[in-house]
Amino acid sequence: MRDFSRDHRWLSINTATIRKSRGADLPLSEIIEACVARGIRAISPWRDQVQAAGLANISKLVRAHGLELSGYCRGGMFPAADAAGLKAARDDNRRAVDEACELNARCLVLVVGGLPGALQGQAAHKDIALARGQVRDGIAELLDYARERKMPLAIEPLHPMYAADRACVNTMEQALDLCDVLDPHRSGDLGVAVDVYHVWWDPKLEAQIERAGRERILAFHVCDWLTPTTDLLNDRGMMGDGVIDIPRIRGWVEAQGFAGYSEVEIFSTGNWWLRDAGETLDTCIARHRKAV
Amino acid sequence: MRDFSRDHRWLSINTATIRKSRGADLPLSEIIEACVARGIRAISPWRDQVQAAGLANISKLVRAHGLELSGYCRGGMFPAADAAGLKAARDDNRRAVDEACELNARCLVLVVGGLPGALQGQAAHKDIALARGQVRDGIAELLDYARERKMPLAIEPLHPMYAADRACVNTMEQALDLCDVLDPHRSGDLGVAVDVYHVWWDPKLEAQIERAGRERILAFHVCDWLTPTTDLLNDRGMMGDGVIDIPRIRGWVEAQGFAGYSEVEIFSTGNWWLRDAGETLDTCIARHRKAV
Repeated sequence: MRDFSRDHRWLSINTATIRKSRGADLPLSEIIEACVARGIRAISPWRDQVQAAGLANISKLVRAHGLELSGYCRGGMFPAADAAGLKAARDDNRRAVDEACELNARCLVLVVGGLPGALQGQAAHKDIALARGQVRDGIAELLDYARERKMPLAIEPLHPMYAADRACVNTMEQALDLCDVLDPHRSGDLGVAVDVYHVWWDPKLEAQIERAGRERILAFHVCDWLTPTTDLLNDRGMMGDGVIDIPRIRGWVEAQGFAGYSEVEIFSTGNWWLRDAGETLDTCIARHRKAV
Repeated sequence: MRDFSRDHRWLSINTATIRKSRGADLPLSEIIEACVARGIRAISPWRDQVQAAGLANISKLVRAHGLELSGYCRGGMFPAADAAGLKAARDDNRRAVDEACELNARCLVLVVGGLPGALQGQAAHKDIALARGQVRDGIAELLDYARERKMPLAIEPLHPMYAADRACVNTMEQALDLCDVLDPHRSGDLGVAVDVYHVWWDPKLEAQIERAGRERILAFHVCDWLTPTTDLLNDRGMMGDGVIDIPRIRGWVEAQGFAGYSEVEIFSTGNWWLRDAGETLDTCIARHRKAV
């Protein structure tokens, strides 16, 4: 297992972590500058932030600084209530692959979607098996395109509390079952993003990380689970402030040969997003060294 | 599958559902009277409510009305930070069995506990595997006692969002693995409580219900998953108001031969607990007939 205690060479910042500074939106260019100023070598930006800044601008900035992208957030949201919706998702996901290529990301992260309409508060139906079938079909279709473009796809199993509205792939086992079906030869073109927040509770986690192996672990995300957690989405904790044994999970992941970035992804309306982005980044660096 | 549309013979009310009426605590005796007045044939009371009213009083009341108990809430909370804590949990669980016997409950429901201290906001450690081992040992020990008293134990797998602080048994598969270890002969003395709120998201749910079979399905609980869900604990929905396909899951459970009560358990600070308990009960009856 790599020693993270002496530097932050393998720290990546998911840009949602400092999406807000003192409660105000922080433009992606400023997020990048703040990271670069601290010797952070990698980021994982969100599509909406890239679009707001302009893809060409961000591409130029990333290249100028020699920044790597541990991933690109995010494709997915495959299920839809009708054929037009499925088509729109298909087209949008191809654009996400194109953007990831332009930014030279290591992978496109897929948050696969849940029941259509649920995120807007009104699910079109209650058939989660149907949604899961649409996810399978959507990834299969996108995989052909992503292969041409040489962009690996990382399915991110999301915590079961997001099954209705954000992602109906909720365990490593389920994600790896999809990989087995869609990429039986373990090409490396399709794998998983292991986010400790989503999977730490899973009694089968160690076994499924072993099953995933080197070819299928495409990203590793960290933050912490707070007790109590006051919001289902935006109350993630800084590494070390919660109950997840992050080093143990990183050990399992690295035992499979994973040698990439440890990406910090914290959504925190009530705490970190209220602080100065510089303070948040400095804390990420310190915790990366001692709590990851 | 039984036809629930014409009466509410198989409706049970978990007393937490009307623990509060118009925001004020409702004594258990009044909860019982309100249920009886509506022809409800079964309840599942909480220990704290029973203690407040007196076990002998409630026992007398339940017998006088010929009420059944679809379960007794609850034993469990096995993990502890030290030997004294483990001993206290052991003793308390034996008392819970005794109370369940006095009330002639169909089973004692076990919410097994998580990381010690986490529910109070400060976990003693982060070793969930250790907590799970203590759960296994605690159930094993309690099972001997419960068998003598002829009180079945129902492990309730709780949603993974409660893994840290309430229950580190989080899937049907995990609960049934425990049953296999502790009661390999499927005696009926140990089984599961299937609560749709906790397990609806699980891609393996149908298969695990089939695996459980008749001997191990000791209780069936219903409510609904709202989108959005605004609180991790107390924002459960009335059946039909959320995204869970309850009839489908009940069909799977009944296909195994389960013929017991459908127990409504709703915690709802912001909605149902603010209404009059009579309105809540009337709604439970109506929804039992059309949405369960």
